[in-house]
Amino acid sequence: MLGLMQNWQLTVDRILQHAAEWHADREIVTRSVEGPIVRTTYGQVHERARRLSNALLAFGVKPGDRVATLAWNSGRHVEAWYAAMGIGAVCHTLNPRLFAEQLCYIINHAEDRIIFTDLTFLPVLLANRDKMPTVETFVVMTDAEHMAGIDFPGALCFETLIEQHSSDVVWGGFDENTACGLCYTSGTTGNPKGVLYSHRSNFLHTLTTLQSDVMGLSAQDVILPVVPMFHANAWGIAFSAPAVGAKLVMPGAKMDGASIHELLETEGVTFSAAVPTVWQMLQQHLEATNGKLTTLKRVVIGGSAAPEAIVRAFRDNYGVDVTHAWGMTETSPLGTQSTPNAAVAALPYEQQLPYRLKQGRAPLGVQLKLTNDADEVLPKDGKTFGRLKISGPFIVREYFRGDGGAILDAEGFFDTGDVSTIDEHGFMQITDRSKDVIKSGGEWISSIEIENIAAGHPKSALAAVIGVHHPKWDERPLLLVKLKAGQTATREEYLAFLEGKIAKWWTPDDVVFVDDIPLGATGKIDKKVIRQQFEHYVLPTAQAAE
Amino acid sequence: MLGLMQNWQLTVDRILQHAAEWHADREIVTRSVEGPIVRTTYGQVHERARRLSNALLAFGVKPGDRVATLAWNSGRHVEAWYAAMGIGAVCHTLNPRLFAEQLCYIINHAEDRIIFTDLTFLPVLLANRDKMPTVETFVVMTDAEHMAGIDFPGALCFETLIEQHSSDVVWGGFDENTACGLCYTSGTTGNPKGVLYSHRSNFLHTLTTLQSDVMGLSAQDVILPVVPMFHANAWGIAFSAPAVGAKLVMPGAKMDGASIHELLETEGVTFSAAVPTVWQMLQQHLEATNGKLTTLKRVVIGGSAAPEAIVRAFRDNYGVDVTHAWGMTETSPLGTQSTPNAAVAALPYEQQLPYRLKQGRAPLGVQLKLTNDADEVLPKDGKTFGRLKISGPFIVREYFRGDGGAILDAEGFFDTGDVSTIDEHGFMQITDRSKDVIKSGGEWISSIEIENIAAGHPKSALAAVIGVHHPKWDERPLLLVKLKAGQTATREEYLAFLEGKIAKWWTPDDVVFVDDIPLGATGKIDKKVIRQQFEHYVLPTAQAAE
Repeated sequence: MLGLMQNWQLTVDRILQHAAEWHADREIVTRSVEGPIVRTTYGQVHERARRLSNALLAFGVKPGDRVATLAWNSGRHVEAWYAAMGIGAVCHTLNPRLFAEQLCYIINHAEDRIIFTDLTFLPVLLANRDKMPTVETFVVMTDAEHMAGIDFPGALCFETLIEQHSSDVVWGGFDENTACGLCYTSGTTGNPKGVLYSHRSNFLHTLTTLQSDVMGLSAQDVILPVVPMFHANAWGIAFSAPAVGAKLVMPGAKMDGASIHELLETEGVTFSAAVPTVWQMLQQHLEATNGKLTTLKRVVIGGSAAPEAIVRAFRDNYGVDVTHAWGMTETSPLGTQSTPNAAVAALPYEQQLPYRLKQGRAPLGVQLKLTNDADEVLPKDGKTFGRLKISGPFIVREYFRGDGGAILDAEGFFDTGDVSTIDEHGFMQITDRSKDVIKSGGEWISSIEIENIAAGHPKSALAAVIGVHHPKWDERPLLLVKLKAGQTATREEYLAFLEGKIAKWWTPDDVVFVDDIPLGATGKIDKKVIRQQFEHYVLPTAQAAE
Repeated sequence: MLGLMQNWQLTVDRILQHAAEWHADREIVTRSVEGPIVRTTYGQVHERARRLSNALLAFGVKPGDRVATLAWNSGRHVEAWYAAMGIGAVCHTLNPRLFAEQLCYIINHAEDRIIFTDLTFLPVLLANRDKMPTVETFVVMTDAEHMAGIDFPGALCFETLIEQHSSDVVWGGFDENTACGLCYTSGTTGNPKGVLYSHRSNFLHTLTTLQSDVMGLSAQDVILPVVPMFHANAWGIAFSAPAVGAKLVMPGAKMDGASIHELLETEGVTFSAAVPTVWQMLQQHLEATNGKLTTLKRVVIGGSAAPEAIVRAFRDNYGVDVTHAWGMTETSPLGTQSTPNAAVAALPYEQQLPYRLKQGRAPLGVQLKLTNDADEVLPKDGKTFGRLKISGPFIVREYFRGDGGAILDAEGFFDTGDVSTIDEHGFMQITDRSKDVIKSGGEWISSIEIENIAAGHPKSALAAVIGVHHPKWDERPLLLVKLKAGQTATREEYLAFLEGKIAKWWTPDDVVFVDDIPLGATGKIDKKVIRQQFEHYVLPTAQAAE
């Protein structure tokens, strides 16, 4: 027997329609690529996005066609998103931080027909234009005045298109499972893979993140998403802010401490979201200028682990509450957030901090489990670590065009590639990447935990731990240390430093002092390269065992 | 093109599973019908509900079968709900405040197979047992000890059933559009009509109400739903509290001021929801006993308009924030809530108050419109009033068994039967029932607005306004006044009192002083009866016009 409630499809065009109907005058403020701060409203953005939909229809864009954006966070970027999504096209967010080669790969893989671009990215597009044959139209997100100065044959002007078309267009009316957005993973191994969001998945992600224990956004909030719209959908904020009628403040291309601080203060921002680096830059700026944060109340940190120093400084010096969020492109992106539950909230702040620094708790709609190599579910005791797997209505089922094959386990869970613990209060903490974990005699050793401790040795500049082949134990840990300039140290000194801080059987079988430790594009230690370098390394214990 | 995200059905069994997995030790505290305060947890409730599902399966309950509850808010009631819903049966909440005749009508109409009942309701069920032939099994929600004392042949004991069955049962796994709950409207005209909720509609209602600007519940909250689970699903709290892991405090049968106050204080309640009468009783108790509210932070009032005096008293005397919510059985029930938006929040409290006393703003997922008799959409200017129509994924599409026929307009909106205004900030205010509004010369006059003013005359005990036939204007307002004991007054005195407070053309064509004004079962003025009494009343202006 089916229920008798309305068949109301969860399509994201309804989100901007809702904002335009109930919060028409609420502002979207942008630090424009052209320079000035520009102001618009949900009412205007809605009207302009609908005009832009007609421009797309005039280009012959059909449902399912990919329309790409290569742009900073701005009011115009929001318009481009809804213009495409509203008519059932797929909005493909391109990451400008990718190498040109990867960018071209992605554009070709997606078969993008249109690219909306900021002025910033015209050089890279012009230089690679003949490598993206599916792209028929380039739309420059600027006005006629700035258009006059550019040299990009055939490129169209965003503002001119909006002037030329009417806002009389049909949005929505299709199945909520219709594809809505496309975002490629950064692809540390192999080619980037596309995650194809549906209207339903984005709508449900929006409702989920609006909960008090997740982002908890309100019509009273003024929100500055520093996290880019091309990076896992700006953690959904281009949907969740209009959903509640919050004011949006868009940083454009400038994410340095001074620029962000200026926007926070002049626009009365109450909530912001960014990766740790941004908060570090802001903190340095505030300290250097003796700056204050007079309106900011809450900050969400994600992308990588939140340094304790930042969390403390924001609370103690500026009265800002920081929570940690975890997610990935494949999870829309929000998977967990470290909002205290009742038991944790009842603790003194010092005892809350370890929980706040973890990746967080799962809201309704996110299922998590930890498994071992035999796919058995492991206990949530805060100590046992296993592969982190995730399921829910806004979690990937398969990659675009089937890349990577079947990616769900027998219970329908996606393997995040992370190794984690989950504690008695439900707080998940990532302890390693599963490809970096060291498998010794059937048990797992966390490479990150050892290297974090070793990096804390006063003589260390950098430390890394990898698993190296061992004839008896399969793998054993090898510690690499880059010493600070002018320092010298011994193997024994480092092993003694680790003693008592890790389980005895985790102790590295050897310590190697190196001149440099290779880092990847994002500044993280590149273990793939280290493993290649030490592929044939013979541990002293291996010789003994043979 | 469809998105490639997981097919994860929104079924409500996942809500209790989530609570059991992530908030296993969080309490549900009940003032039991047997007397003592009893404590359980989400972990235990989940386990017991699953055992109860096996009991239902043993009774031969199949998907779609109706399983009724006649019960106060309690942990056991929550168990019965999820036991039925988890296996795809429909949980039918019976309202014990109905007359026996209506109760029987509803049970027969629904063809309930099982009734879970509190001890309280055994007499009415026993007396009417032969009038409910579809009911095969009565389960008394008590333990073996209390069961021994009752005289109800064949009735089964709730606790014994739970002991007898295992918790090994399959929950969910069906389409999210599967029927989940059934609740009948109070049926002021004609027979009660059934609203058949789906798993999807209840799940989406849960996510929607969890938003900060709606109920904004958190894992840190302790929630006391005074509003009964049989009254529009306790405004969804039996779903939304476990969804976030909030502690639940259930009042059982005792909703007087002293009992509620005791629970609020001893259990550390932070959030509560009830109709105005409950808050009035609590307020009177607090004043009489010089009582305090040391933990309560937020209260939602609904069911009927929130009196200004209560809203003020809770804020000024007890520091409790009161917001108004509006909804109906047909809307799951939450339609609007009067949480201030940014513009209203920026006003001084005295200027916020008129907005807080309105029925409130629509969250994403609720579409509202005002229409006139020609079905044209009216402006949201805070003055123009029209029929309030509503659409969304948790709004009724048709009544159970097709009662009442087609109930949606051409755009898919349900007519609430209310007449409302919507102001420039999106706050909706109900000004009348559409059957009570007075249609004068094609324009509408609010009967409630006039009678509220007339009731404020110092000599008034009660006032009512109805439309009476008029040969020229179709209808004109007639004011009925019941004076306070010992008072006398004139027609002219009342008309002068109204002057300047309402539009001139709204002025009643006559005033009649009556000994009594008929009230309905819920204490509201019964205009149906008044209209019958004055069906042939000839207005003085009617004589003049003829």
